[in-house]
Amino acid sequence: MSDAVFRVTASPEGTPARRGVLTTPHGDVNTPAFMSVGTKATVKTMAPTELRSCGAEIVLANTYHLFLRPGPELIAAAGGLHGFMAWDGPVLTDSGGFQVFSLADARKITEEGAEFRSAIDGTKLMLSPEKAMEVQNALGADVIMAFDECIPHPSDRAYVEESVERTLRWAARCITAHARDDQLLFGIVQGGMYEDLRRVSAERTVALGFPGYAIGGLGVGEEKPLLYDMVAHTAPLLPADSPRYLMGIGTPEDILHAVRCGVDMFDCVLPTRNARHGFLWTSTGPVRIRNAQYREDLAPLDAACDCSTCTRFSRAYLRHLYVEQEGLVARLLTHHNLYFYLSMMVGVRDALRAGDVAALSSSAEDLFLRGVATQQDGRP
Amino acid sequence: MSDAVFRVTASPEGTPARRGVLTTPHGDVNTPAFMSVGTKATVKTMAPTELRSCGAEIVLANTYHLFLRPGPELIAAAGGLHGFMAWDGPVLTDSGGFQVFSLADARKITEEGAEFRSAIDGTKLMLSPEKAMEVQNALGADVIMAFDECIPHPSDRAYVEESVERTLRWAARCITAHARDDQLLFGIVQGGMYEDLRRVSAERTVALGFPGYAIGGLGVGEEKPLLYDMVAHTAPLLPADSPRYLMGIGTPEDILHAVRCGVDMFDCVLPTRNARHGFLWTSTGPVRIRNAQYREDLAPLDAACDCSTCTRFSRAYLRHLYVEQEGLVARLLTHHNLYFYLSMMVGVRDALRAGDVAALSSSAEDLFLRGVATQQDGRP
Repeated sequence: MSDAVFRVTASPEGTPARRGVLTTPHGDVNTPAFMSVGTKATVKTMAPTELRSCGAEIVLANTYHLFLRPGPELIAAAGGLHGFMAWDGPVLTDSGGFQVFSLADARKITEEGAEFRSAIDGTKLMLSPEKAMEVQNALGADVIMAFDECIPHPSDRAYVEESVERTLRWAARCITAHARDDQLLFGIVQGGMYEDLRRVSAERTVALGFPGYAIGGLGVGEEKPLLYDMVAHTAPLLPADSPRYLMGIGTPEDILHAVRCGVDMFDCVLPTRNARHGFLWTSTGPVRIRNAQYREDLAPLDAACDCSTCTRFSRAYLRHLYVEQEGLVARLLTHHNLYFYLSMMVGVRDALRAGDVAALSSSAEDLFLRGVATQQDGRP
Repeated sequence: MSDAVFRVTASPEGTPARRGVLTTPHGDVNTPAFMSVGTKATVKTMAPTELRSCGAEIVLANTYHLFLRPGPELIAAAGGLHGFMAWDGPVLTDSGGFQVFSLADARKITEEGAEFRSAIDGTKLMLSPEKAMEVQNALGADVIMAFDECIPHPSDRAYVEESVERTLRWAARCITAHARDDQLLFGIVQGGMYEDLRRVSAERTVALGFPGYAIGGLGVGEEKPLLYDMVAHTAPLLPADSPRYLMGIGTPEDILHAVRCGVDMFDCVLPTRNARHGFLWTSTGPVRIRNAQYREDLAPLDAACDCSTCTRFSRAYLRHLYVEQEGLVARLLTHHNLYFYLSMMVGVRDALRAGDVAALSSSAEDLFLRGVATQQDGRP
């Protein structure tokens, strides 16, 4: 792994925020980047070509779900996730840790790893650092994640201390077990809501030496101010020349806060999940498309948006499809929400390139509009 | 209405089958044509641009469903179905008759029309010839259908006689009530399974004078040989210089039989509905994608097909999405099945243009392959 996998291309004074480029075997990712979540090797309802037209440069898939079904052997035989899901751009897989700890039944944590029962057929399964590497090596993503323990909030300090140590031992085992030099293995910082434990976790994870670092264990039930404090505290503990990834976060506002703290990469199910529930982000604020007020509203979902949903369909039509539970609506709304998130990131990157630090504190709506204008001007 | 709305462009000797062009305000439709069913102003899961890429030239929407919700006023305000669903090609609406008789609760038929209760809120509603014209005038399709009584099979001869007479009186009222000269109003032949009543219905419907004629009341529970006999009997009773439309039929084999009888237009939910249930037509026969035999099958759904599903995704991936009930799968499979049907129609038209009468008796699979090759050669 050479340091050249990540280059900071703009680093304006007066903010830890930075613009950069992450280089992977399947292409470059401009950062700060939002990764669309494709849990089961599909960003729900989106065809790969459509993801591209939303502006997606990288997608995320979930090791836990794919380990259970259809299994890493099949995906490896299909040419990895890229071949299986017909997405030729960069892919990141999580390690399965978060899902084992949040979704799996009958889980039991030992030094070896995490035992749990398959939600599909009840068989006993184990994810360990070695197994998580084996599975992720088979899935073939460009960026893979160390196997960590993700603890809930609140957790006793004593347990968090013990867990941080275990996650560090697991991280070292991941480095040893990782068998492919065409995949970047990122370490994950834990430490619950304890600033000193976050520091210990960060320093010792960095000492192990990864090409990138994630901040894990946030968005697990803590209040927003605490989340924001922990991000602000942890991000600067990570090397300035490596990509920083805040796992599973969040709303546009959460992401913008973290960008201002110097975080480079994000993923979250919110834009896709909320779309399926009829909640949309627009330049004029949130829209719940089911609301009766949109019944005869022939305006676009967002008149300032140039996505293929907003340029073709009215709110009244989208509401009609939503009320009728028509399959097309999830797709049209997902497209728009992803376009909102991804264009907001374009706006963020444009502000960073221009050294416009003040703009980073403007609203998600303003940064979205800046992103739309940036893309219309043909800037990357 | 001038006769020029339909031109027969090839009429090979030795078969009643013909190739033609139906001209509408939203463009030409090459016949024999299959119309994709967009019941609630959406061909389920398909964006309009995707319909085009399947080869669709015309779509069908259902008056009954759209009358109930969202109502014709909204759709008229949106610029008719074309504006509402963002499909700029030709549209046909049925009259609502079939659905009133097959779906509606508490229906009661009078000379005035059909009373029924709304499935949505239980209110009493009435569809009559005048109301069906008013609603279809508002929906704004290029081709609209007379309001008819569609009777089940078997039905007593006495009832069918009475019903045929009522449908003829309703047809005359439809002509009087139809208020837009930019919409083609087609008459519908009924008569149950009685050849002489079909003849009476056909002759007297033709005497009323429509720019096109449908064969209704088939596919209502009768055995295939009877369906085939009724099509063969009824089609030649209709004018050779007008388009003939067989409503709601059917499988590829049903359609090919009717083409050989001289029918020009078709619609059916089978390709879209079966796709959602994992049943696919391919050049090598049917595929039920859920079957375990496809679990590790990395071949395309149909290696001879050049649709965007077959050129990008494996059977194993499609099966994975189907098993996981992922929203993307309905879309990918619908795309393929529509491409199969529509390419088969391209193959039929190519055979007719070439005067290759024997080819019309070949299999649906062969005509599909002929259609794929025709499109690859750039022929229309």
